Amino acid sequence: MKKETIKIGLLGLGTVGSGVYQILTQNSKDIERKLGAKIEIKRIAVRNLAKPRALVTDQKLLTDNLDHVLLDPEIDIVVETMGGLEEARWAIASALERGKFVVTANKDLMAQYGIELLKIAKEQERNIYYEASVGGGIPIIRPLKNCLAANRIVKIMGIINGTTNYILTKMSCENMEFEAALAEAQAKGFAEANPASDIEGWDAAYKLNIMASLAFSSRIKMDDIHVEGITEVKLRDIRYAQELGYAIKLLAIGEEKQNGLSLRVHPTLIPQSHPLAAVKNEFNAVFLEGDAVGEVMLYGRGAGALPTGSAVCGDIMEAARAIKKEVQNGILEATFTEKPIISLAAQSSRFYVRLKAKDEPGVFAQLAAAFGNADVSLDRIIQKRSVEKTAEIVLVTHDVKEGNFMQAISSLRAMEAIRSINSILRVVE
Amino acid sequence: MKKETIKIGLLGLGTVGSGVYQILTQNSKDIERKLGAKIEIKRIAVRNLAKPRALVTDQKLLTDNLDHVLLDPEIDIVVETMGGLEEARWAIASALERGKFVVTANKDLMAQYGIELLKIAKEQERNIYYEASVGGGIPIIRPLKNCLAANRIVKIMGIINGTTNYILTKMSCENMEFEAALAEAQAKGFAEANPASDIEGWDAAYKLNIMASLAFSSRIKMDDIHVEGITEVKLRDIRYAQELGYAIKLLAIGEEKQNGLSLRVHPTLIPQSHPLAAVKNEFNAVFLEGDAVGEVMLYGRGAGALPTGSAVCGDIMEAARAIKKEVQNGILEATFTEKPIISLAAQSSRFYVRLKAKDEPGVFAQLAAAFGNADVSLDRIIQKRSVEKTAEIVLVTHDVKEGNFMQAISSLRAMEAIRSINSILRVVE
Repeated sequence: MKKETIKIGLLGLGTVGSGVYQILTQNSKDIERKLGAKIEIKRIAVRNLAKPRALVTDQKLLTDNLDHVLLDPEIDIVVETMGGLEEARWAIASALERGKFVVTANKDLMAQYGIELLKIAKEQERNIYYEASVGGGIPIIRPLKNCLAANRIVKIMGIINGTTNYILTKMSCENMEFEAALAEAQAKGFAEANPASDIEGWDAAYKLNIMASLAFSSRIKMDDIHVEGITEVKLRDIRYAQELGYAIKLLAIGEEKQNGLSLRVHPTLIPQSHPLAAVKNEFNAVFLEGDAVGEVMLYGRGAGALPTGSAVCGDIMEAARAIKKEVQNGILEATFTEKPIISLAAQSSRFYVRLKAKDEPGVFAQLAAAFGNADVSLDRIIQKRSVEKTAEIVLVTHDVKEGNFMQAISSLRAMEAIRSINSILRVVE
Repeated sequence: MKKETIKIGLLGLGTVGSGVYQILTQNSKDIERKLGAKIEIKRIAVRNLAKPRALVTDQKLLTDNLDHVLLDPEIDIVVETMGGLEEARWAIASALERGKFVVTANKDLMAQYGIELLKIAKEQERNIYYEASVGGGIPIIRPLKNCLAANRIVKIMGIINGTTNYILTKMSCENMEFEAALAEAQAKGFAEANPASDIEGWDAAYKLNIMASLAFSSRIKMDDIHVEGITEVKLRDIRYAQELGYAIKLLAIGEEKQNGLSLRVHPTLIPQSHPLAAVKNEFNAVFLEGDAVGEVMLYGRGAGALPTGSAVCGDIMEAARAIKKEVQNGILEATFTEKPIISLAAQSSRFYVRLKAKDEPGVFAQLAAAFGNADVSLDRIIQKRSVEKTAEIVLVTHDVKEGNFMQAISSLRAMEAIRSINSILRVVE
């Protein structure tokens, strides 16, 4: 089939959908030359037909009935940018069952129903492209599926939530506390009115699920991921971290170890010399380690109409090539295994602790004994001049078992001389 | 055709060839699972059969006759890692004409004969994969061809030569002069005994040719690229650059402007806050600007057996998928246009100048007049306390026409009060 025009149907015309429309319109000549075929937007399904839309001048393109896209036999590719879970799941399954290729930017959906949908695609000899679901315009999914496919991926560490990275950057560079930085992020449009999914780490966890499934070829459930957000990170901790040579970032970390996978999202101290430490503001980056390639980092804008639209349009072009060539596009990413998950308690980590203790003789010895008895060795200690008979102490442990560390913390909590344990954060070297 | 085994023939078993052999052997199970087919190395052509090879235990695999690979009808993919120009060009053309897919890591070849070879591939309905020709294991070619395909690429800036980046890092971080840093790079295996192609900028220019051809979809000749190496960069300039807030890097820069393409490789001052400034030692990175995606950076190891082997093996897997699906793999990258090239003289740039002048009244006024008369405005000036009646002066200009700047430099050279013009470097903000 040498199609001269590939017709697409858009589900949704919000931020990402508008970006897609704009890119396909403004770069149509180049896209046609590169593909050897024209991309035509045949229909756009929107929730509210009455809403005025500056971008789309041809009102006939719009419909508020999803079936006008899904049932149109002329439409080759369905592009889902409407978001949400159940309706999108149904729409994508319907599109695949009608022999259409699918492009989606929906991370929640791919994290939760991706494997189910990829299975349907495989049965239908079609494919789902989802580059835009992680890291906006940054090439991540395709490098994992293709360029790095011959590697055993050992580790992924990503700054994959722009909101939290913006907040942590503001805290670090402009001496703001979390609440003030969040307010500024909201004012500038980098955080939503309800920022829970971002600041509590869930957005990053969805994206980690998608990346790690692919990197480790394993089915991952959301429950397999340990998730902590940044709401408890204090400016004080950022300052101490700097003094110790670290930056604090919300990292999504996936590792394949001998006995299984470790999957977690949490605020993390990383050395200032690490390439991820230089990723500022709303930028995203994914740092990978492969057994052959070594260290690779992919960096760029993780959100926004045009960056995310760029990834969606790249996927549309790949689907168009598949259609032009009548490729039965093998669903490579459906060949998942099921690897065991290693709980955090069973793992080792370095820890950062900030606490307040009575400034009395013998207190530090008690504290050191609590760590020593639990077999937790200390790497670095900062104690500043005490205020009102209270000393603030910051400790960084060596790599220790999480269980042992928590046992030491329990002993500390029971000690009369310890006034408070203010922060516990993990350190990655 | 549902092939269960894809057979490859390797041309060359040097650094990259050995890396490919090692990865395909050690990750064979994962690769088979991902592909749904086995990759078998059927034959390896080497120059010297007598040379002992620890890696390949089965002597029957080896041959010193290229035809044993090229003429074997069972071989589906020819992997060229032998390097050089004419023999490789002939071998690849022969392989394509016999209906084989080709994977190559040969940058000199792709820069000089890439378009010719891609044309043959298109005629034969085959493809050439060359991810490994730029940036070792870093995904660059495929992101340009696929993920970012819907973008108009505005600018590429790359640190794509590990040797020169290692040398500049040593100079900058360990206060070494060029010669000492080169000697250390050679001792550590980061520079060859004959380092000319690296330090004079040619290696970077070949890679820029390949990237820019793809990014701007335009045929580029090596003559279109302005090439300067790093042999004239002095430690003094690196120190002054640091004082002004810049790092000095050998950048390969391609830009599409209204009236054509600007293509150049030269040592460049970039702000210390730019992501490229943090790329240290032998690491490579490519920084791209697309009209939709904004800024993207791809970072990793640009050379070495396993990183480069990783890219070659990723390409082998893509070729294998194409074969398994009987795809007539459209030669997207053969749809090149021919865009005009803008000479450096016709362009604007910011310049850094270091010179020595007599420390006498009126000299600075003369100097300023020379710039002013040529319509070159100065942005920043450093003058340190003079030694033996000679003042060292460092100037950074605003964005000025290269022709005007050179006219100012000519006037300076004619001035009796100017003792020497020691360095002229370009600045990119």
